[in-house]
Amino acid sequence: MKCVAVIGASQKRNYFFLRAHATQFHGEVVAIKPGVEKIPGFDNVPVYPKIGDVPGEVDFAFIALPRDQVKSVLQECIQKGVKLVSIFTAEFSDSGTETGRSMERQLLNILEAGNYNTRVLGPNGMGLYYPRKGLAWRPEYPQNPGEVNLIMQSGGLANLFIHTSKYLSLPVGKVFSFGNGIDLDFLKLLRFSLEDPECRVIAGYLEGIKPDQGSDLKTLFGRNISSSNSKPIILLKGGRTTAGSTAAQTHTASLTGSAQAWESLLRQHNIIQADSFDNFVNLILYFHCYGSLRRPIQNICIISLSGGFGVIATDIFESLGFSITPFSNSTQEKLTQIISVSGTSPRNPIDLSVLVQNSSIVNQVVRTILEDPLIDAIYFELPPWYFDTSHRFSESAQYMKEMIECFRLGHEFNKPLVVSIPHVGFEALREELLQKLTQNRVVVLVTPREVAELFFQVSDYHSRQKIAK
Amino acid sequence: MKCVAVIGASQKRNYFFLRAHATQFHGEVVAIKPGVEKIPGFDNVPVYPKIGDVPGEVDFAFIALPRDQVKSVLQECIQKGVKLVSIFTAEFSDSGTETGRSMERQLLNILEAGNYNTRVLGPNGMGLYYPRKGLAWRPEYPQNPGEVNLIMQSGGLANLFIHTSKYLSLPVGKVFSFGNGIDLDFLKLLRFSLEDPECRVIAGYLEGIKPDQGSDLKTLFGRNISSSNSKPIILLKGGRTTAGSTAAQTHTASLTGSAQAWESLLRQHNIIQADSFDNFVNLILYFHCYGSLRRPIQNICIISLSGGFGVIATDIFESLGFSITPFSNSTQEKLTQIISVSGTSPRNPIDLSVLVQNSSIVNQVVRTILEDPLIDAIYFELPPWYFDTSHRFSESAQYMKEMIECFRLGHEFNKPLVVSIPHVGFEALREELLQKLTQNRVVVLVTPREVAELFFQVSDYHSRQKIAK
Repeated sequence: MKCVAVIGASQKRNYFFLRAHATQFHGEVVAIKPGVEKIPGFDNVPVYPKIGDVPGEVDFAFIALPRDQVKSVLQECIQKGVKLVSIFTAEFSDSGTETGRSMERQLLNILEAGNYNTRVLGPNGMGLYYPRKGLAWRPEYPQNPGEVNLIMQSGGLANLFIHTSKYLSLPVGKVFSFGNGIDLDFLKLLRFSLEDPECRVIAGYLEGIKPDQGSDLKTLFGRNISSSNSKPIILLKGGRTTAGSTAAQTHTASLTGSAQAWESLLRQHNIIQADSFDNFVNLILYFHCYGSLRRPIQNICIISLSGGFGVIATDIFESLGFSITPFSNSTQEKLTQIISVSGTSPRNPIDLSVLVQNSSIVNQVVRTILEDPLIDAIYFELPPWYFDTSHRFSESAQYMKEMIECFRLGHEFNKPLVVSIPHVGFEALREELLQKLTQNRVVVLVTPREVAELFFQVSDYHSRQKIAK
Repeated sequence: MKCVAVIGASQKRNYFFLRAHATQFHGEVVAIKPGVEKIPGFDNVPVYPKIGDVPGEVDFAFIALPRDQVKSVLQECIQKGVKLVSIFTAEFSDSGTETGRSMERQLLNILEAGNYNTRVLGPNGMGLYYPRKGLAWRPEYPQNPGEVNLIMQSGGLANLFIHTSKYLSLPVGKVFSFGNGIDLDFLKLLRFSLEDPECRVIAGYLEGIKPDQGSDLKTLFGRNISSSNSKPIILLKGGRTTAGSTAAQTHTASLTGSAQAWESLLRQHNIIQADSFDNFVNLILYFHCYGSLRRPIQNICIISLSGGFGVIATDIFESLGFSITPFSNSTQEKLTQIISVSGTSPRNPIDLSVLVQNSSIVNQVVRTILEDPLIDAIYFELPPWYFDTSHRFSESAQYMKEMIECFRLGHEFNKPLVVSIPHVGFEALREELLQKLTQNRVVVLVTPREVAELFFQVSDYHSRQKIAK
């Protein structure tokens, strides 16, 4: 991908989309705007009246023009041989009007006539965010590439996810916001991602499929997902309830299907169903960090810094069917030697209390527990204030570094270790810790319930994955 | 409460507890430390060898001494006529040893001999945080007084709550951390709070009761809570599962009782059971903000800024049995006039999209919906970036002020309006908004699921409250 054209740079929007592309794209950016020689503030961006006037090849074109102009410009893109076109312009079938639907059919006719040599994202979508190439629809989007592909039937949720990924330091591979999806739709982008060598984890938001894509849900994914697929697929399904389905019809004019039919379909293909946006993000974060660990999770060790925290977390995990297993005798003996302080007993859940201030002891405790063959995973509950100098007597930067080493130990033992840090102030510290831990592929969430639900879903996925083999 | 004595100011801990009391307490603070005339850094704090040497009356004494010295010092406090003593020292019955239990019985015997003219919090507890008088066990605790009393059988959770309340700008009345509770225990503090004129909302964390308090759960609250009680009581019960109960026994040596027995007991007295710490906080925040609104909630209006958000939130609310009711005809007509922009229809859930940037339109929309008699409550889903200058074209401080006015409208119509703001970066802005909204008694949470669960619990509470009348 060497050259990108932004068609319809609008002065009224302060050249928003041109700025986004010019800021980030690794190759050449050109603007298409008739009657203008230069765009103020964009001295390095050549301006051409039409896309046909660009001297070299154009790989990607972003169209943000009034609806009436889209058809002829798309035609020009096809003639120019542009590989991928993203149409931001809305008010086609999404308008719910016959005019809109008719204009959308005309776009489709042009594509068909061109034998789909030019592919289209949209209309009414944000298109493609592809940090590996510097393709972004907002200037401030993160630029480091990852291995998660997102396929989003909602530009708003795509945008929310990208903001979230930046906050978490979770890198993404590609985000597709396909809008009305006249050409590249959810299923085509899913098939592409399954074969995409840059992608290890697939996640999507889907409200439903169009009436003309057939309503035979049973074969829907079957045609696309092979039984040997090893990439986790996480789906947030919008419109699972009657009211949600009605809302989805207003939003994307989709047939949402019944919740039961979808649930059975997704289980059949071992697609993980997220039940909310935050759960969706948690699952993606988990597979980014611990995607290679493929064993079910049953026996949890809970490490907290206060007896009360440990009691509540134990209730939550046991309610979901997990076992807060007693440690083996040898683990108990080792722990007794490490934590000789009174008030802390070598039992699961383990209450580290003030011992948390000694990162060397924390390291030994975590290591000893991970060595115990009875334990599948660790949940570590951590208030943020221990990283604040006013709450500690030792130097903070070193302490944070050493604690991150402790939390990374899961990778050494091939067992997931998930940390939760509540939002109780100290937000700058929390954010620093969160981002460093994600960069070290350690999952950080907010509450014990989120962690328990995540473990439940992941364990279910892995046990089915085993059966499938 | 005019004079507070800190007994056992420890140089090793850098006079931690003395600092906490000297920083905040509104009256006189004295230190009790034999063989010392002045404590460095505390020039204004008189030092006396014994509490009996303090010339005037002492209202409150905080004891942080080695275990062996507590008994005689408590005896001296009784002789001095101190009204309330908080014993921080641990390793009494909480140690699980016969020595510890025996020493605790000795403390109790002294209290009995003194006819309980001196009351005791602890041992093994943080004691009392009482911002109205400036009584705090950490220097950085917030100083503004509120109307929520907390009764906590875990110092760690008490501390976590106080940090959280500071982060939320949620003022508290009194926090009791009663530790082993040899004198003032959960039930006595509950009875006190029910009669406390400074208290409007009661919340507590309880693992269980001591064997000698009787196991007849049915009469436990019955003796204490009158049927005309109008203060909401929120309880987070630790040890509801088998493993959780075992963990609670290690933590506070409590008989937790069966989950079923507790659940039926709490329902009988219309005590609201929180199912996690964050839910506990959400409930307290709700009753602080909207405690005077006493109608059940059934029909919700969802306002989002993207169709996808609205669809997901609708699914979540409907799953919990709420109705995302269509607006009345007159509301639809009014909304059509206000939101003439294409892409936004006057239906519930309503997708404001970019209209959110116009606070005057938001105000009219919210007002119109609150006027609709079919709607009981509004849930408003708000990403934080609209308050960031890089995402807006207008002035931000004024916009935030006007948006806060919109969110306050619930009070004008006696209907709860709850906002959720996800954690997606912009944390400083989010925190500013959160704190200003709490100060205006508007509830801000993080996810739609939290809001739906909160509405469910609140509605259940109010419908039972109605029946009780």
